Amino acid sequence: MEDFPHAESIGLTDVTIDEQFWNSWLETNREVTLEYQYEQLESSGCLENFRRVADGKTGGFEGMWFADSDAYKWLEAASYVLAGEDSNRGDDRSNARRNELQNRVDETIDLVAGAQDEDGYLNTYFTLEEPEQRWTNLNMMHELYCAGHLIEAAVANYRSTGYRSLLDVATRFADHIDSRVDDEIDGSPGHQEIELALVKLARVTGEDRYVDLAKTFVDRRGRADRFEREFERVENIAGYDPDDGGIATDARGAFYEDGEYDGQYAQAHAPLSEQETIEGHAVRAVYFYTGVAAIAAETGDGDLVTRLETLWENMTRKRMYVTGGIGSSEHGERFTEDYDLPNKTAYAETCAAIGSLFWNQRLFELTGNAKYTDLIERTLYNGVLSGVSVDGTEFFYDNRLESSGDHHRRGWFDCACCPPNVTRLLASLEEYLYAASGDSLYVNQYIGSTVSTTVEDCAVELEQTSAFPWGEDVTIDVRTAEPTTFSLELRVPSWCSDATVRVNGEPISMNEDVLSSDDGEYVTIEREWDDDRVEATFAQSVVPMRTHPAVGENCGRVALTRGPLVYCLEGVDNDRPLDQYSLELDRGFDSRGGDEIGDSLEGVNGSDLVVIDCEATVPSLEPWDSEREPVRESGTPVEADIEAQPPLYQPDEDVRDETESVTAVPYFLWDNRAPGEMAVWIRGTSSNR
Amino acid sequence: MEDFPHAESIGLTDVTIDEQFWNSWLETNREVTLEYQYEQLESSGCLENFRRVADGKTGGFEGMWFADSDAYKWLEAASYVLAGEDSNRGDDRSNARRNELQNRVDETIDLVAGAQDEDGYLNTYFTLEEPEQRWTNLNMMHELYCAGHLIEAAVANYRSTGYRSLLDVATRFADHIDSRVDDEIDGSPGHQEIELALVKLARVTGEDRYVDLAKTFVDRRGRADRFEREFERVENIAGYDPDDGGIATDARGAFYEDGEYDGQYAQAHAPLSEQETIEGHAVRAVYFYTGVAAIAAETGDGDLVTRLETLWENMTRKRMYVTGGIGSSEHGERFTEDYDLPNKTAYAETCAAIGSLFWNQRLFELTGNAKYTDLIERTLYNGVLSGVSVDGTEFFYDNRLESSGDHHRRGWFDCACCPPNVTRLLASLEEYLYAASGDSLYVNQYIGSTVSTTVEDCAVELEQTSAFPWGEDVTIDVRTAEPTTFSLELRVPSWCSDATVRVNGEPISMNEDVLSSDDGEYVTIEREWDDDRVEATFAQSVVPMRTHPAVGENCGRVALTRGPLVYCLEGVDNDRPLDQYSLELDRGFDSRGGDEIGDSLEGVNGSDLVVIDCEATVPSLEPWDSEREPVRESGTPVEADIEAQPPLYQPDEDVRDETESVTAVPYFLWDNRAPGEMAVWIRGTSSNR
Repeated sequence: MEDFPHAESIGLTDVTIDEQFWNSWLETNREVTLEYQYEQLESSGCLENFRRVADGKTGGFEGMWFADSDAYKWLEAASYVLAGEDSNRGDDRSNARRNELQNRVDETIDLVAGAQDEDGYLNTYFTLEEPEQRWTNLNMMHELYCAGHLIEAAVANYRSTGYRSLLDVATRFADHIDSRVDDEIDGSPGHQEIELALVKLARVTGEDRYVDLAKTFVDRRGRADRFEREFERVENIAGYDPDDGGIATDARGAFYEDGEYDGQYAQAHAPLSEQETIEGHAVRAVYFYTGVAAIAAETGDGDLVTRLETLWENMTRKRMYVTGGIGSSEHGERFTEDYDLPNKTAYAETCAAIGSLFWNQRLFELTGNAKYTDLIERTLYNGVLSGVSVDGTEFFYDNRLESSGDHHRRGWFDCACCPPNVTRLLASLEEYLYAASGDSLYVNQYIGSTVSTTVEDCAVELEQTSAFPWGEDVTIDVRTAEPTTFSLELRVPSWCSDATVRVNGEPISMNEDVLSSDDGEYVTIEREWDDDRVEATFAQSVVPMRTHPAVGENCGRVALTRGPLVYCLEGVDNDRPLDQYSLELDRGFDSRGGDEIGDSLEGVNGSDLVVIDCEATVPSLEPWDSEREPVRESGTPVEADIEAQPPLYQPDEDVRDETESVTAVPYFLWDNRAPGEMAVWIRGTSSNR
Repeated sequence: MEDFPHAESIGLTDVTIDEQFWNSWLETNREVTLEYQYEQLESSGCLENFRRVADGKTGGFEGMWFADSDAYKWLEAASYVLAGEDSNRGDDRSNARRNELQNRVDETIDLVAGAQDEDGYLNTYFTLEEPEQRWTNLNMMHELYCAGHLIEAAVANYRSTGYRSLLDVATRFADHIDSRVDDEIDGSPGHQEIELALVKLARVTGEDRYVDLAKTFVDRRGRADRFEREFERVENIAGYDPDDGGIATDARGAFYEDGEYDGQYAQAHAPLSEQETIEGHAVRAVYFYTGVAAIAAETGDGDLVTRLETLWENMTRKRMYVTGGIGSSEHGERFTEDYDLPNKTAYAETCAAIGSLFWNQRLFELTGNAKYTDLIERTLYNGVLSGVSVDGTEFFYDNRLESSGDHHRRGWFDCACCPPNVTRLLASLEEYLYAASGDSLYVNQYIGSTVSTTVEDCAVELEQTSAFPWGEDVTIDVRTAEPTTFSLELRVPSWCSDATVRVNGEPISMNEDVLSSDDGEYVTIEREWDDDRVEATFAQSVVPMRTHPAVGENCGRVALTRGPLVYCLEGVDNDRPLDQYSLELDRGFDSRGGDEIGDSLEGVNGSDLVVIDCEATVPSLEPWDSEREPVRESGTPVEADIEAQPPLYQPDEDVRDETESVTAVPYFLWDNRAPGEMAVWIRGTSSNR
């Protein structure tokens, strides 16, 4: 039995991304989205809430009661950007921009600090609106959730800048919570988040009691009496009115099923140790299990890891879209049941995909298993990137897998959780690329970048170039301060069945299992490294994927994938209504540069963009729409012939099919051009079955 | 240009049905359903409403405000049954039953008569609840609708029994309406029905002014100002409260779209002469156009006929299910737009299918065109029969074309329009079989029966035997009082491409167009008839039907049909979830006796019931559910292997198909056995396309 964690991801400040595909996304994220979202924080009243508290005002809170978290997520994202700007670029323009952003971050931190009560409490909704009701409704009022985001922002800010100002605020609030957790705060949070944040706080402060506090929240969870007791308490508050939208926000709809306490919505239906399937609100679930994984990494508790692996198996084998999206139902934004994965009503919230990244990152760290980093790749390119427009200013809350043309990204939401979540994820993408473990150095994502780290006490630098996601070639130049023996672990993606790896031109032999696995696997290159070049090719053929037959609506359908990307059909590229296409899989696929599409999408380099052409069977329209004899009824005046209408139903033998070309584009790019139909799962036949 | 009408259907009392298939349905209708529905009239309070009025009470009305119509529809059905019983059977048992039914009808007529005001007004809702509000809300309060059903019942009762008691009540009410139509009743009915009824009343009374009154209502319709004026008037009533459910029932939701008067819901969006497409609430639409057709038959107005034919073309070529069901949306129980025919949410109200029969019957009478009688056949066997359970006590309001197993017939509804509508239709089925026109005698439906009529002043009797819907042979023995020359017009069904007709063993030559037509056609046998036998065979092969490609969700799918019947798959007969089947159309079909199914369905003769077997491609489950290697994570304790889960997505080339048999059963029989999935449109491929 091995100690946990197995590996540690290499942090933001030691990694610099420099690759055409990602540069475009990350630059838009830094320069457009971050700025746009700050404007939203102002215009939505979110920052004004902090100002009102600092100014000693009461009432007048604006936005959802958890709006503070929007500011915290922005601060977290901005802090990551500051770290990247600091280490990556030194030109005048970026320095000026860095200074401007630093000033804005400092101002915002001042606002937050000014809103903190003397006793460390910090929540503008309660302080402005219901100061007497602090900690009375942990289920729905998200004080602990907001505290968690404050802590995450503080840790990010401290790690990125070294300044303690926000960290001090967060620590004071955490201490406030810690001091009251045995009496006033006698439950667990209705929306998990603080658990994972407290472990981060423990790591930067060295204070294990924050891990204990996180563990307390996890251990309390799923004891029905705690939640039920709180419901009773809320209802006993003087002036309780379930319809008034204040403290009394009634969560029975989410926690009760047919009048009986259920708790699945918030993973509170059973203690963690008894949870066999992944249930409830998807964001809550993956935030929760991220926190549990973080605790396991601190405590070395193997039972927790086994539990998480069981839940992960259930999620990925039965309850996850091919994009990595999770939480299939809009009702409750939640997991439902095995194989219930509707396309047109797919919820697959952007935040849930991001939370899945967090969780998978920690599962990888715990176990060193490539299936987790592999799923990060799939989710990042499909489930997350789809959530933001190419221009960085519009967002999907829910990521449908099929649309009749009426689903579009929007600028901001009343419940604005997703936009700043995308921003903080992209701003910290560097953290997902590399990891170290003893004498192993992991390359988890193929994204052009450099990393400086230490392996076996020796300084090691990797310089990676990658053609992903459009191309298949990766080079990694390994430079060590002195010749040192260690293992370089390259992830062989699950989608790749034909990979070659060479070191200084010499092929590395690879176990067939690595290539045929359904999951990602690592290929290990153990040698004495000095100044060496690794070249890898991960063949990216077009692979039509089938779904487990239990997913009824995907029966007879395929999703086209190529490398890490899921593709889709959009109306703008195809003449027929999408329902009419049945892909002729035997006739193969033509991957080609999508210049004309890329050119129309600012921010996506058209020369690299790959689209897929293939042939599809479509019904010939001739038997349906051909001119009919004028309808001349006996008894109808001849001069009043009725307009001829094509028939609605015809015998199969009287109709014919023909073949037309279709063009598929990467799913993450959909709804960036003309509005129209979209479908991931397309009817398709292959004769070799 | 020909005068209208072209033909006249031969009435109930001249036709006697005697055929195994229909005897079973009609006997259940007479002996079970009619009795069951009478009990419902009592238990729902419907008859009590009449008693309360007769007793001079006020208040206490029970049921929907148009509940009177349930009693009228029952009276109409019971009257048809009395007519049938009278002429068909003379044994003691049927005489006793007839007497019992006659007494019950008489009692009910007394109740109705007792509830009529001195001025002829008759509506128990208004008289009990809001006597001052008569005729103030024609849009929603259904006084004219109920009056129409009273008139229909009265006409049926008079025609069946010769007694005038109910006819007198109806005539007094019609006269009341006629006398107020230029002032008090200054609009048109929100739910059409009275138009068709008034024409019936004119025909039995010989009073053309009832046709004029019907015409007034038709002519007023679709003048927006009339409906809008009424809305204003309703809102100006003292005490108006749109939520109180009384007179103030607010119809703006149905008549207004985005705040603008729309009127499509009630076919009041435009004057009839400007209506190009069939719109709105489906029952209202077909009742309306039935009334218009009835008026055209009285007035000979060819423009009306042309208008109706245009609307019929729109309905049947773009807005009708393969079952003949119409009105695809539950929201508004209405037509939506061309080719919008969802299966799982198909509304296809039973009442709308019945109304379609009424309309098609009159269109046939106007024009002599077989496409209308052909659609009657399709709608009768599929869209109507599906609405009632084999045991006659449970009903579908909406007839879905696909179900995951949660849609079932029920005993009665708050809005109980459909059950008594089925009953009165089945009780008058005799009226749909034969028609006469000058020297032509039409055989419209192949249902074993005898008919006595007069052609060219000569008494003619036909005795038909028919194996429909299970078999293809029909014999018609023609007997005339003396040798007489006339044309016997036999409908060649649209589904039949291989028919033979022989007279006294001699084949009749048939025009190829008749067999290849998309619509029904008549084959004319003109000869001197005396005592002759016509034998016809209408080959009933299994025909997989395709839908116009514009109906997206049916793309790639077929519906199996055989003769007049649409078939479906039910979960109870098939092992796999229905989504998994893709029919292999090239492998043909095996029509076989469904003894084992028939035996389990009381009332359906198993030895005749035909089911269809065929082969279908299904995914092999082996690649999906085979044992996987135990999941042994690096870092996971070996003793804690995670339960192996099958993959959710696999490359097309790694999975395989296999073949399984499927069994299809007639659609009208679905949900009569074990609850489960059902689908009409099944994926299917044929290589010859």
